Amino acid sequence: MSNYTAPVEDMGFVLKEVVEIEKLCNETGLDSSTVEILDTVLEAAGKLAKEEIEPINKPGDSEGLTIDGSGKVSTAAGFKEAYQHFVEGGWGSLQFSPNYGGQGVPFVVAASVQEMWHSANMSWGLCPLLTQGAVEAITLNASEELKQRYLPKLISGEWSGTMNLTEGDAGTDVGSLKTRATPNGEHYLIRGQKIYITWGEHDMAENIVHLVLARLPDAPAGIKGISLFLVPKILVNNDGTLGESNDLKALSIEHKIGIHACPTCVMSYGEESGAIGYLVGEENRGIQCMFTMMNNARLTVGLQGVSVSERAYQQALSFCNERVQGVAPGFKEPGPIIRHPDVQRMLSNMKSITQASRVLTYAACAEVDYSLSSLPLENIEKHERRLGLLTPIVKGWCTETAQEVASVSLQCHGGMGYVEETGIAQILRDARILPIYEGTNGIQAMDLVGRKIIGDSGLGAKELITEMQEFAKNPALLEMISSSQLGRFSSSINDLESTISIILKHSDNKELVGKVAFDMLMMAGTITASWQMLLSAERASNAFNNSASSADFLEEKVQTVKHFIDFILPRYLSNFTTIVASTE
Amino acid sequence: MSNYTAPVEDMGFVLKEVVEIEKLCNETGLDSSTVEILDTVLEAAGKLAKEEIEPINKPGDSEGLTIDGSGKVSTAAGFKEAYQHFVEGGWGSLQFSPNYGGQGVPFVVAASVQEMWHSANMSWGLCPLLTQGAVEAITLNASEELKQRYLPKLISGEWSGTMNLTEGDAGTDVGSLKTRATPNGEHYLIRGQKIYITWGEHDMAENIVHLVLARLPDAPAGIKGISLFLVPKILVNNDGTLGESNDLKALSIEHKIGIHACPTCVMSYGEESGAIGYLVGEENRGIQCMFTMMNNARLTVGLQGVSVSERAYQQALSFCNERVQGVAPGFKEPGPIIRHPDVQRMLSNMKSITQASRVLTYAACAEVDYSLSSLPLENIEKHERRLGLLTPIVKGWCTETAQEVASVSLQCHGGMGYVEETGIAQILRDARILPIYEGTNGIQAMDLVGRKIIGDSGLGAKELITEMQEFAKNPALLEMISSSQLGRFSSSINDLESTISIILKHSDNKELVGKVAFDMLMMAGTITASWQMLLSAERASNAFNNSASSADFLEEKVQTVKHFIDFILPRYLSNFTTIVASTE
Repeated sequence: MSNYTAPVEDMGFVLKEVVEIEKLCNETGLDSSTVEILDTVLEAAGKLAKEEIEPINKPGDSEGLTIDGSGKVSTAAGFKEAYQHFVEGGWGSLQFSPNYGGQGVPFVVAASVQEMWHSANMSWGLCPLLTQGAVEAITLNASEELKQRYLPKLISGEWSGTMNLTEGDAGTDVGSLKTRATPNGEHYLIRGQKIYITWGEHDMAENIVHLVLARLPDAPAGIKGISLFLVPKILVNNDGTLGESNDLKALSIEHKIGIHACPTCVMSYGEESGAIGYLVGEENRGIQCMFTMMNNARLTVGLQGVSVSERAYQQALSFCNERVQGVAPGFKEPGPIIRHPDVQRMLSNMKSITQASRVLTYAACAEVDYSLSSLPLENIEKHERRLGLLTPIVKGWCTETAQEVASVSLQCHGGMGYVEETGIAQILRDARILPIYEGTNGIQAMDLVGRKIIGDSGLGAKELITEMQEFAKNPALLEMISSSQLGRFSSSINDLESTISIILKHSDNKELVGKVAFDMLMMAGTITASWQMLLSAERASNAFNNSASSADFLEEKVQTVKHFIDFILPRYLSNFTTIVASTE
Repeated sequence: MSNYTAPVEDMGFVLKEVVEIEKLCNETGLDSSTVEILDTVLEAAGKLAKEEIEPINKPGDSEGLTIDGSGKVSTAAGFKEAYQHFVEGGWGSLQFSPNYGGQGVPFVVAASVQEMWHSANMSWGLCPLLTQGAVEAITLNASEELKQRYLPKLISGEWSGTMNLTEGDAGTDVGSLKTRATPNGEHYLIRGQKIYITWGEHDMAENIVHLVLARLPDAPAGIKGISLFLVPKILVNNDGTLGESNDLKALSIEHKIGIHACPTCVMSYGEESGAIGYLVGEENRGIQCMFTMMNNARLTVGLQGVSVSERAYQQALSFCNERVQGVAPGFKEPGPIIRHPDVQRMLSNMKSITQASRVLTYAACAEVDYSLSSLPLENIEKHERRLGLLTPIVKGWCTETAQEVASVSLQCHGGMGYVEETGIAQILRDARILPIYEGTNGIQAMDLVGRKIIGDSGLGAKELITEMQEFAKNPALLEMISSSQLGRFSSSINDLESTISIILKHSDNKELVGKVAFDMLMMAGTITASWQMLLSAERASNAFNNSASSADFLEEKVQTVKHFIDFILPRYLSNFTTIVASTE
C-alpha cells in the first residue's frame, strides 16, 4: 500500500482559484489548453507518483547505492524503471520550450506535478530537479549550437543534468573554487574535483550533462573569475549520437543522514587528459549563469519542503486514525488517537502549514511565468521584484516548516516513529537536507535582507506590504474570520512594515542586519503565508457556488485557514520582538 | 580527539551559586563534604566522559549491536570496558543511600555528573539511567528482603536495571497491558511480551533486574489492576550468589533512527515454565510504584536534553572556529565562519538555550533533594509542588529545545552536517527519542495542565508566579539588563499568570485545555528558563568578588543571559497569543 496520495483537490484549487491559472495563461500568452486538461494532468501524475515512485522510496532508503572501482554507480531496485516511465510519459518536459521538445506548460503547473515526485520519493525526484536546472542554465546562456545538441535530450529526460559548484574549501563561498579550465581549440579542458554533486553519476539515463564552474587561466580572483562549462559524461558526436567517454568520474558517494538512494558524488574531472567542456555564456560570467538556474532551483527546494510536509502530514493522519490508545475527552471507550485534542492540534498544525507552504510556493512559481512573459517591461519588473522577494522566503520558510512537520509527524507515531519500520524516520532524515542545499537558509536570510530589501531600497517589500494592507481591508474577510483574527493579521502587516523600516534605517550596520536577518526571513514567511491562506479562504468562500471543488473541501479550507491564523501566525511576534529588541 | 569537554565551570557555577549546594546540604541534612570535593568530582567525571565514554560514541553508532539466536546481545567495542570503569569508579552509586552501598551525594550533584555521560554517549548513558530508575522504585516500594538482595549490586552498577511498561497495544495507555502474573508459592510466574525495553539485554553487567508491570489473575481492568514485579535475568540464591537463568529473553532489537548502540529490546517473559518474579509494593499498585521512578526518570530525560544541547553546541563552536569560508562584515580577508553575524546568532542561541536548560533542570533536581529531606511537612509539600510543576516543564522544554540545538548545530556545519562523518548527524538522530520516551511531550503537557495546574487548583503555579514576580522587582537587575529587557520579562510573568487563570477558568472544557496544553508547556518553559537565567546573571554579578569562577566566565554569563532575553524569551508571545485566541 502506498503511503502517499497526491492532494489533487488542494493543488487544483490553488492553481485554479488562488493562482488563477486561466488568467495567468491569458496574460502571459501561455497555452491555455493547460487549464482544460489540468485535472487530467494532476490525476495522471498522481498515479505515477503513487504507483511507481513511492513504492521504491523505502526500499531505496534501505538498499542505498553501490559504486564500483571504476566509479560506476548502481541505483536501487526499480529506480531505473520508474525513471524510464517518467521519461516515456513526457513528465520532464512540461514547462520547457516547444522549440526544443518541451510542452510549454506554465512553470507553476509543472511545479505542482513536481511536488508529487518529491512527496513520493525525494531521492528519486532530485534527478529530474537537477536536470531542470541544467535545462534552464543552458536555455538562458548557451550558444544555439549547444542548445540544439543538448536541450532536446535533457528536456525529454533521456539525459540528466547536474550542477557542479562546491569544492572542499568552496561551499557557501563559491568564489574560492579552484577547478581549472584551459582553452584547447574549440573547447576547454577541465581539471579539478567537485563535492556534493547530486546525481553526479548513475545508471538511470544514457548520458549526464554536468554544468561545472571553473576558472580560466588568467581569470580574476574570487567570484568574478568563474566561468560555466558544459561537460558531458559521454561526448556527443556532430550527428547527435553518443561518442567516447569524457575524462571524468565519480570517486565516491557520501554517507548521508538521509536521501540514501540519491548519489551525492565526489566528482573528478580531467585526471588523465582533461575533461572536454564547452563554455556556457561569457567568460568569467559563470556565477550569473549559474544564478539563473539557482533561483528557480531555490524555489523548487522550497517546493520540496511542501512535498515533505504533505507526505509527513498524510502519514500522521493515517496513523492517528488507526492507532487506538486511551480514552479521549468526551468518549467512554478507547479509540483512535486522533480523538485527543493535543493530537488534533498537531495534525491541524501540520495540515495548515502544508497548505500554507503550498499556496505561498505556487504563488511564487506563478511569478516565474509572469516574469518570463512578454508583458510590458514595467509589469515584468514588478513581477521580477516580487519573485526575487519571495524566492528566499519560499526556500527558507517552507524548508524550515518542513522540518517541523516531519518531526511532529514522527512525534504523532510515538515510540513507533523512532523505529525505521514506520517510514516516518526516513522522511525526517531525508528532509534535513532542505535547509542546507541551494544556499543554506542563513544565506537565504541574507539574500532577503541584503539584496531583496536593502539592495532594492525596500521597493519590492513596500509593494508587497501595500498589497497585503489593501487585501486586509476587504470587509468580506469578516464573513470568514473574526474581527480579532483579522486584527491580528492587520497588525502583523504593520509590524512587518516597521521591521523593514528598521532594516533600511540600519542598512549600513551589516553586523546588526546579519544578526536579525533570519528572524526577518521567518517573520516574512509567516506573514506572507498567512496572507496567501486568507486569500485562499476568500477564494474558497467565493467558490462555493461556481467551483469544481466540493463544499466539504471549501469548508475545511476555511477552517484550516482559521487554525493557521490562531496557531501559526502568532509566531512572527517572537521574531518581531527579537528584531526590535536587537535594534533598540 | 574527543568532541566533548565537560563544561565544569558552568556546572560548578550553577551548583554553587544558583542552586546553592552548600545551603541545600545544610538544610536537607545531606553530607556537606560534597561541597568541598565538588570540583574534584566534576573534573574526574569529566575525564572519564571525555577519555573513555565519548571515544566509543561514534564507533558504537556505526557498529550497532548484534543479537544471536538465543537472544544474547553483544554491545559495540569498548562499551563493556567503559562500563566496567564506571562501576569501579563508583559513579553509579553517588546519590543513593549509604545503607545499601550508596554515597549519599545530593541528587542534583549526581545529575550534573550524569549530564556528562549523556553528552559523551547517549546510547551508553541510558544503561545507568535505567538502573537509577530501578534503584528508586525498589528503594521506595520493595520489601526489606528484596532491597537487601538487589540494591547493593544495582547501586554499584554490577547489575543493571530496566523498566518494562510498554506492550504492542499499550504505549501511552499503559493501563491496557496484558502481561500476566500468577501466584506460585512465594513468588509469581510472569508471562507476556514487552516492547521498547531499553538495555533489556546486554553483556555489560553480570545480571539484569527487570521491573515488569503485569496483571494478577483477578485484577481490576485498566490502570488500577496493574502490579509491579522484580524479575531478574539470573535468579539470585539466598546467599546472594547468582543461580540459574530465569525464563526470559530478548527476542529482537529495534532498528531505530538513532541510539544505535543502545539495545532497545522486545522482551519475552515466561515462554517455557514462566519467569519467576517478586512483587514490589502492594498488589494492583504497580502504577504508583512505577511513577515514583518515572518522575525522576522524566527529570533525567530533561537532563539528557541539556546533554544533547551542550554537546551539539560544543561541536558547532569548534566547527565554526575552524571552517574558513567567505569574508565577514568588518573584515577584508576570508576567515572562520564564526565571524558571520548569522553564525554568531546561531551559536548564541545554542549557548544560551543550553545554559538555560541546565540551570532550569538543576533547579528542579535540587527540589528532589529538598522533597526527600526531613524538613517540616509544610516545606516538604511546597518543594513537592514545585518539583511536580517543574518536572513536565523540564522534560518537555529541555527535550524540545535539544532538537532545535542539535538541528542548528548541524545547520552550522552546512553540507558537511548532512554527511555522517562529522558526527553531528548522529547527535540529531540520537536526540530525536527525547521528546518521545518517558511520556511523550504531549503527555507532559497534559500532566502540567491537568495534574499540576488544574489538579492543584493553581496553588503551585501561583507560588511560582509570586516568586518570579518578587524576583523581577529586584532593582539590582537593572544593573545587568536594560529596563526594556526587564519590562519584557515582567510582562511574561503576568502573561503566564493570565494563561493560568484562563486554564483554571476553562478547566471543565477538557477539549479546549488539551488543545492549548502544549503551548502552555512551552510558554512555561521559556519563562521559567528566563527566570533561572536572570537569577544566574544576578548571582554572577554578586560573585565577581567572592567566587571561584573567572571574571571572563561571569561576564560571559551576563551576556548569554541578555541574549536569551532578546532572542529566546519572546517565543512565549506566540504561545500566549495562541492560548488567548483559542479561548476567546
